Amino acid sequence: MGDYRIIEVKQDILADNDRDAAELRREMKRQGTFLLNLMSSPGAGKTTTLVRTIRMLRDELKIGIMEADIDSDVDARTIAGTGVRAIQLHTGGMCHLDAAMTRQGIEELGTEDLDLVVLENVGNLVCPAEFDTGAARNIMILSVPEGDDKPLKYPLMFQISDVVLINKCDVLPVFDDFSREAVTERIRMRNPDCEIFFVSARTGEGFEAWIDWLRRETAAFQKKEDDHA
Amino acid sequence: MGDYRIIEVKQDILADNDRDAAELRREMKRQGTFLLNLMSSPGAGKTTTLVRTIRMLRDELKIGIMEADIDSDVDARTIAGTGVRAIQLHTGGMCHLDAAMTRQGIEELGTEDLDLVVLENVGNLVCPAEFDTGAARNIMILSVPEGDDKPLKYPLMFQISDVVLINKCDVLPVFDDFSREAVTERIRMRNPDCEIFFVSARTGEGFEAWIDWLRRETAAFQKKEDDHA
Repeated sequence: MGDYRIIEVKQDILADNDRDAAELRREMKRQGTFLLNLMSSPGAGKTTTLVRTIRMLRDELKIGIMEADIDSDVDARTIAGTGVRAIQLHTGGMCHLDAAMTRQGIEELGTEDLDLVVLENVGNLVCPAEFDTGAARNIMILSVPEGDDKPLKYPLMFQISDVVLINKCDVLPVFDDFSREAVTERIRMRNPDCEIFFVSARTGEGFEAWIDWLRRETAAFQKKEDDHA
Repeated sequence: MGDYRIIEVKQDILADNDRDAAELRREMKRQGTFLLNLMSSPGAGKTTTLVRTIRMLRDELKIGIMEADIDSDVDARTIAGTGVRAIQLHTGGMCHLDAAMTRQGIEELGTEDLDLVVLENVGNLVCPAEFDTGAARNIMILSVPEGDDKPLKYPLMFQISDVVLINKCDVLPVFDDFSREAVTERIRMRNPDCEIFFVSARTGEGFEAWIDWLRRETAAFQKKEDDHA
């Protein structure tokens, strides 16, 4: 009693998704469309974050959104309300998107004229991290109420994310066991180069720094394309 | 612009887990150990809920806990602090537990003398819903900050859950777009027989009703076993 052991239980998955992802990434690069893969737990605020991001950038960038969900289209409806090009992907029960599914979305959305496309992945901290979608960058949202221990428990998600947005910072006073320092240290342990922004999609707090990053990265991505051309 | 279409993108999974689950369920029934499968998103409060539940019941029931995580053992350490028998299952990256993995945990934990065993599944609203663990009942936790639209987006999880605990109700005042009525209606749409309890694992609000349910169901489960013997 009071003691416990650690048992390794295991099963198999995975196919040959990496080549498809690399090919899609090359095509998007040639086309000059910056594709982001946005991931989080259910309810961390992906759609609210997207809506505010779109409002702040839609006058300077041509934006498209792919909403992936197992069921329902409430998010696509919300996104479509912002006036940008949007599409809903239903995964038929699947817990993540792979490169082939992303490609179907890209082809249906039509992205040749777009500067920035965001794929809102299925709400899940596990499976989406295992499948390269072909996006240029992985963005993840961790919301304050989920707790600052998540980088300990879902290591791969943090390891593969180029940016982590810590969302719902407006409720930090009521979730006072959440430590900005602890979460930062735990994220850096998984990925020393990760960009971390503390934001609130509800109030707009901290969004300038995130939007600056996005503006800068989109421009750099297209610039490099021009150099290459 | 402003419009969107719905595209069905699909892939394959699944094996023959159902027979293993049914067999494990029969064995636990013969043994008189009530096995619960506890599921939620990351950070919804599974461990905090378990700790409070254990404290309220440990003097009347012999309890065992299996903590499943992809990595880390912070939760098992917390649970072990309550003095009940606990074990940590590492899934080696897997996003859910199946019946065979649950059986390994049961065998390692040793459950013959226990009244109640809780399997804390991987934090994920998608994959755990697809795999019968062999538990007698499925319990899920939805936390208020995640939003009241989750039964629309993760239908299977709500459909297969016998009980939904709506946790973090102490923060309802700051998440005032969360409607108790809307979430109740949406859960019932997926599963009309689902028991719903509004609780706060942090403050203990609403726990009496949940504990009563658990006490009653554990007794009924063991009673039926006696009848059968």
